[in-house]
Amino acid sequence: MPKIVDHEKRKEQIAEATWRIIVKHGIQGATVRNIAQEAQLSLGALRHYFKTQDDLLLFAMELVKKQATKRIYAIAISDFPPLDKVIRIIFELLPLDSNKTVEMEVWFSFVFYCRHNEYLFNIHQDGIFTETGRLLAYLNDHHLLVPGLDLSMEQERLYSLVDGLAIHAMLERKRMSDHLIKQTIYYHFRSICIPEAFDQLQM
Amino acid sequence: MPKIVDHEKRKEQIAEATWRIIVKHGIQGATVRNIAQEAQLSLGALRHYFKTQDDLLLFAMELVKKQATKRIYAIAISDFPPLDKVIRIIFELLPLDSNKTVEMEVWFSFVFYCRHNEYLFNIHQDGIFTETGRLLAYLNDHHLLVPGLDLSMEQERLYSLVDGLAIHAMLERKRMSDHLIKQTIYYHFRSICIPEAFDQLQM
Repeated sequence: MPKIVDHEKRKEQIAEATWRIIVKHGIQGATVRNIAQEAQLSLGALRHYFKTQDDLLLFAMELVKKQATKRIYAIAISDFPPLDKVIRIIFELLPLDSNKTVEMEVWFSFVFYCRHNEYLFNIHQDGIFTETGRLLAYLNDHHLLVPGLDLSMEQERLYSLVDGLAIHAMLERKRMSDHLIKQTIYYHFRSICIPEAFDQLQM
Repeated sequence: MPKIVDHEKRKEQIAEATWRIIVKHGIQGATVRNIAQEAQLSLGALRHYFKTQDDLLLFAMELVKKQATKRIYAIAISDFPPLDKVIRIIFELLPLDSNKTVEMEVWFSFVFYCRHNEYLFNIHQDGIFTETGRLLAYLNDHHLLVPGLDLSMEQERLYSLVDGLAIHAMLERKRMSDHLIKQTIYYHFRSICIPEAFDQLQM
């Protein structure tokens, strides 16, 4: 069914054009007109794929999530030692390369936009809170956490640390190098994991 | 000079109208026309106080900062024990009551807006990074930190924790109660302070 594939592929190209517009001009610049121009399509052709601006924004957002989920899944089923896996997954949630920086920028712009368009999207769907809980439970199951931690507090802390770092990395690119971001994550895990957890680290 | 006082007061009233508009409609809704309407002024009268939309936004933003700085200063010169002071100041940086929620919402909307209007404002001016460093140095001077911490790493961690919590509190108001936000901050300080630091806590 090559036609269906082409249709999906074209939708993804339009979504990627939307990302570029958001990075360049913010979500306030992500009008159907600007996106059509960036995707080198007529307004009519764009409307063939997306009926409304909200449909398009939602698709562009879901594509960010789909790509991140795919990368996280590949790490989750890999053979890396437990802490290695966990830290690699956390790195996927941070703007550590230019692709991921685009994703984060688009994601946060969208989340703030949705503050005032709640029918469109609910932050709870973003899944990072749940994911951080899962990662901590996984380390706990492997007896790699320092005894006596409060796991629900640790989840809030890790969740805030990840999103706070992501925001700072985006807004203060000159101060926050990739090295500094990674170093902060390692430092945090050193404070909550037993030393043996680091013995097998391959990173 | 009552006239000057009135002029400043009127500017602050316009700034507060701007905040209300941003909270209701996002920064994309903060047009000069909407703000004039909210402040019950004619466009001409508004222009008497602010020549451009950017002048107005910048003033509205500086007023957020001025108010927060004033509250923080009052705590800094108070007689509370050191850790008490530090935690009270951190609470001033989080959306823990409706006034502060408005401030944070306005602040983050503005910071994201400035991503694409960098001439207007530079995030480095926000001062929270510097403030977290100062607070940790203050605890360290009073020998209240656990020995062996890396203070620059702790600064990144506290800074990210504060902004991450602020963002989550704004975006997930149903999940994040004031109690949960405070509990997370206490939990974090329990992990970096010696137990004696908590003995004098009056909160």
